[in-house]
Amino acid sequence: MSKKPTLLIFDVNETLLDLKPLEQKIIEALDEKMAFQLWFRMLLHYSLVETTSQHYADFNKIGQATLKMIAQQLGKNLSDDRITQILSTIKELPAHPDVEEGLTQLSKQGFEFAALTNGSLRTVKDQLHFAKIDHFFKGIYSVDAVQKYKPHSETYAHVLNVMNTEKENAMLVAAHSWDVTGAQRAGLQTCFVERPGKFSYPLAEKSTYSVKKLTDLSDLLAN
Amino acid sequence: MSKKPTLLIFDVNETLLDLKPLEQKIIEALDEKMAFQLWFRMLLHYSLVETTSQHYADFNKIGQATLKMIAQQLGKNLSDDRITQILSTIKELPAHPDVEEGLTQLSKQGFEFAALTNGSLRTVKDQLHFAKIDHFFKGIYSVDAVQKYKPHSETYAHVLNVMNTEKENAMLVAAHSWDVTGAQRAGLQTCFVERPGKFSYPLAEKSTYSVKKLTDLSDLLAN
Repeated sequence: MSKKPTLLIFDVNETLLDLKPLEQKIIEALDEKMAFQLWFRMLLHYSLVETTSQHYADFNKIGQATLKMIAQQLGKNLSDDRITQILSTIKELPAHPDVEEGLTQLSKQGFEFAALTNGSLRTVKDQLHFAKIDHFFKGIYSVDAVQKYKPHSETYAHVLNVMNTEKENAMLVAAHSWDVTGAQRAGLQTCFVERPGKFSYPLAEKSTYSVKKLTDLSDLLAN
Repeated sequence: MSKKPTLLIFDVNETLLDLKPLEQKIIEALDEKMAFQLWFRMLLHYSLVETTSQHYADFNKIGQATLKMIAQQLGKNLSDDRITQILSTIKELPAHPDVEEGLTQLSKQGFEFAALTNGSLRTVKDQLHFAKIDHFFKGIYSVDAVQKYKPHSETYAHVLNVMNTEKENAMLVAAHSWDVTGAQRAGLQTCFVERPGKFSYPLAEKSTYSVKKLTDLSDLLAN
């Protein structure tokens, strides 16, 4: 049994916020039901291409670049303006239905919250404000501060440093197995949120917890 | 104008070999026309998740793990045996139609060839043998030797070290813009092979050359 954490570090997109409105826009624009999944996976891959080749580009820019590539692959022409317009939907996403109640319960239990995202700080602040959950977070952080993308260990270490917390006392909560895997390997406790369509990476070490909803995590940490 | 290279380092899958037979197998097994693309992109992403989190797993194993995840996402059940059977198709891929003539011409022009792949050494040797092009290569290399995936600079440096070649005298030839981008950033000359459905990463530095067929590269280097 792990020692109970004091700090919960939440991933943002898909973990807290529902990307469905953006998915719909991309599917409509490219007339392909898998277009969003192809794009999001390519965006994640290229973020790590940047980190692995010791470069850095803003996540929004990589998002635009990869959406252009996916459009080309699918034989569609999207102007830069149209791409910007489609991707602006990321600032208007609702929280998943379990999030407000889950955060409220966890907050009452005394846990502190941070948010850590691959997106830019400006974008994530707008996102959490739009979803009306920004007030829950003591700190909101972007990997931009270390110019490396998750799951690089420095991204998690940045939050731990700023919030003066030992890794053993922190838990990364994410709906992405690659994020959970990285945090686990960096020595944090972890919780994998099994959002629909999200599955564990079979080669990863087991996460500390695995839940379907944030309210389930609240229940698990209450004991 | 760059100095003419002496060593051409070829990526293997999609650059030299046509993955179509594997694509068909995966599309059939998962009954989804985008299944191969989703899987291949997820495989590439997770290879870099391993490198970024300072771990390493064999590319075949990551291929199996990610195919299992894609099947789960698509609501299909694939046994481990079926996954192994599907992925064994990677050892029986034909070379693209321009490859034999392109390599023959470039060979006559005096260039030396190496192959460098994310796949295992055993797999790539079997692949090049099956496609009847293994005799062209002075050296066949896997990233397994450095336990980091392309586009990490150490992968290219490994080939340069073993073949005693300065980076300025080497050219990476690949149908993947992320591979070309990494090699360019590592100081090699580069050639992007625009296979159907492959497009340049808009945030990358321009590659030294861009061609549709290997015979076009032979023409460009003849001048």
